Amino acid sequence: MALVVQKYGGSSVASAERIRRVAERIVETKRAGNDVVVVVSAMGDTTDELLDLAQQVCPSGPPAREMDMLLTSGERISNSLVAMAIHSLGEEARSFTGSQAGVITTGAHGNAKIIDVTPGRVRDALDRGSIVLVAGFQGVSQDSKDVTTLGRGGSDTTAVALAAALKADVCEIYTDVDGIFTADPRIVPDAQRLDTVSFEEMLEMAACGAKVLMLRCVEYARRYNVPVHVRSSYTTKPGTMVSGSMEDIPVEEAILTGVAHDRSEAKVTVVGLPDVPGYAAKVFRAVAETEINIDMVLQNISKVETGKTDITFTLPKTDVPAAVEKLTELQGEIGFTQILSDERIGKVSLVGAGMKSHPGVTATFCEALAEAGINIDLISTSEIRISVLVADDDLDDAVRAIHKAFDLGGDEEAVVHAGTGR
Amino acid sequence: MALVVQKYGGSSVASAERIRRVAERIVETKRAGNDVVVVVSAMGDTTDELLDLAQQVCPSGPPAREMDMLLTSGERISNSLVAMAIHSLGEEARSFTGSQAGVITTGAHGNAKIIDVTPGRVRDALDRGSIVLVAGFQGVSQDSKDVTTLGRGGSDTTAVALAAALKADVCEIYTDVDGIFTADPRIVPDAQRLDTVSFEEMLEMAACGAKVLMLRCVEYARRYNVPVHVRSSYTTKPGTMVSGSMEDIPVEEAILTGVAHDRSEAKVTVVGLPDVPGYAAKVFRAVAETEINIDMVLQNISKVETGKTDITFTLPKTDVPAAVEKLTELQGEIGFTQILSDERIGKVSLVGAGMKSHPGVTATFCEALAEAGINIDLISTSEIRISVLVADDDLDDAVRAIHKAFDLGGDEEAVVHAGTGR
Repeated sequence: MALVVQKYGGSSVASAERIRRVAERIVETKRAGNDVVVVVSAMGDTTDELLDLAQQVCPSGPPAREMDMLLTSGERISNSLVAMAIHSLGEEARSFTGSQAGVITTGAHGNAKIIDVTPGRVRDALDRGSIVLVAGFQGVSQDSKDVTTLGRGGSDTTAVALAAALKADVCEIYTDVDGIFTADPRIVPDAQRLDTVSFEEMLEMAACGAKVLMLRCVEYARRYNVPVHVRSSYTTKPGTMVSGSMEDIPVEEAILTGVAHDRSEAKVTVVGLPDVPGYAAKVFRAVAETEINIDMVLQNISKVETGKTDITFTLPKTDVPAAVEKLTELQGEIGFTQILSDERIGKVSLVGAGMKSHPGVTATFCEALAEAGINIDLISTSEIRISVLVADDDLDDAVRAIHKAFDLGGDEEAVVHAGTGR
Repeated sequence: MALVVQKYGGSSVASAERIRRVAERIVETKRAGNDVVVVVSAMGDTTDELLDLAQQVCPSGPPAREMDMLLTSGERISNSLVAMAIHSLGEEARSFTGSQAGVITTGAHGNAKIIDVTPGRVRDALDRGSIVLVAGFQGVSQDSKDVTTLGRGGSDTTAVALAAALKADVCEIYTDVDGIFTADPRIVPDAQRLDTVSFEEMLEMAACGAKVLMLRCVEYARRYNVPVHVRSSYTTKPGTMVSGSMEDIPVEEAILTGVAHDRSEAKVTVVGLPDVPGYAAKVFRAVAETEINIDMVLQNISKVETGKTDITFTLPKTDVPAAVEKLTELQGEIGFTQILSDERIGKVSLVGAGMKSHPGVTATFCEALAEAGINIDLISTSEIRISVLVADDDLDDAVRAIHKAFDLGGDEEAVVHAGTGR
């Protein structure tokens, strides 16, 4: 008998009809002889409706503690409804809040991190033969005992953390796509579903904008070695298994995983910076103090006649105003002449363990973009990843060009559903 | 500085606009120099929407534990929204679930009783200058630590129980009427608002169908001597203070409180019962075993020629099928010939401490009904109450006739709003 943790996203439980279908799948898993723990996100539109109400009663911006109290009711509703639907199919089911399930977090409302999971009540309920539902996306803060939320993708993290704490055999993430693809099928129609992906490759894909699994969830799965099975809520297709280390893949089998893209970043250029040691550090210290994560960085070659240089970096679009404000404050101290920002950019990345053993990948990558007439703005690489910045309008073409150049396409037709991000 | 507990019903927080108005009133109370604890019911239609979803996913009848998990999210939403609205007015506010506020109950899901209130976190938050919101209608079971609900009127009970545990100076119940009236103003247009009512009189009024306060809430207030101030959410009128014992009212000031009516009961008659000691007890034992509360009882005079008698009793309409089934099961043992049931009845009651010192009240009561051409089916009395059963269609006329006969009308015009019962 295996212990299976399943996670269903908000679109999988968006209506009573879908809730009944999800319940059927859960009951099937139970009747196949497994212990089953299920994490469910809030129903489709619930979160948006609650956010709208919050905005109406507190236009100045609601306090984070109360926002968490409000939003966590969404998972409470969906989880108890799934429990009821399971009950009507003749199986026992008990739903628990994050707090009841022992999901202990930091106190950072809206973006808490899981510190520990003490699933005593979950284990007791399993031992009594019950299917257990746990509200995703939420926990209880270690210090204040207040209700917290984990931020975007939090329900996936809840599922992986529970799987780790319960030593589950697998954590199944049910989503609106059939698995992890070599590229976004909405952009590349012949994108191929991957059977398996190592944790490291998945980390790079998630970090580069692949949206199926959030970065924190993959980090958690890797740290606790929890196999994550990404599957469709709507089909019984085999999905993608994320597990194992890249190190364990024989060199001759190592391949390219796929092409990821990201539209969420913007580019900031600090112009006319004195080309003297320590000035670049001042720029990055200033940005770090506003708690903004910088992604790619480029420092131009200094112009000899002026002794000045430019620094360009990328950061989340939403953080541009804060970064510009902070840098402008420090303009006198840092001594640059101008700040430029550009939100019309996109990042395309190629990821795969096979890159290590195949020379010429970077050359092929750049040739493919050149042939498509796409200008490269910035390049950054890791051991198993190449990322370049291109113009926003060129992004889809860039994804298709690279996907084709590395022959990543397949025959299976990808099915695309609408999805949510929680 | 006083400690004030306030309770707002679902219709008072049915929209963002109403939530903001409630928040203004709460902030006003705080700024007048009081510590404030607020209990809020679920927003207007939330409960009905959740019940409807539950019915859709589990048509066979959802398990009570999960129903409580589902429904309690309603108060979580309304309480956090009120906290946000208070925040936007510049005051600190923290919302707590029933469990967090220390509302400990029995494990009877859907109809739990409060065993104890341990409001340590509420007290801490008050000490830090915060307004405290507590989700009404809910608690946590002492044994299983599961979330429970208190049943109809539960939010009022939460407020009174918190007021008792915190030794509050007053528990203010904000509702959609201006206070306790001498009769339902929808039936009797000149019904008069009462300034004060003793606990005993309010108990009788609630037990006889007056809906403003639920019986359990009044029982709790009386036991812990918590003054309950019933006021309108929509006006600043003085409302009604429910406090003190009837025993403390000087005889010469004791008056009649009002006329209550109840349409929720039905009448069952067990026909042709052997008129031998012990047979009536068998009937009532059978009904008690189905956990049904009987209200009024009448045993007819035995017919000498047959040695048989009839017993009539009233009970909640919803319990008629269970009572009839149980009695039919025992027909052989009890030996009656027939069971009749009648749902087209209503009960009208006159309540007041003044009844003890004013002989002739029963006579006037019956004369008033006779003059209105209304037939009395059954009479029952207590020290401070007369109740009679009449035909459903005669109920409104009966209320008006008695209200007029005892000169209970006033000049103040009663304002009627639509309301909910949680």
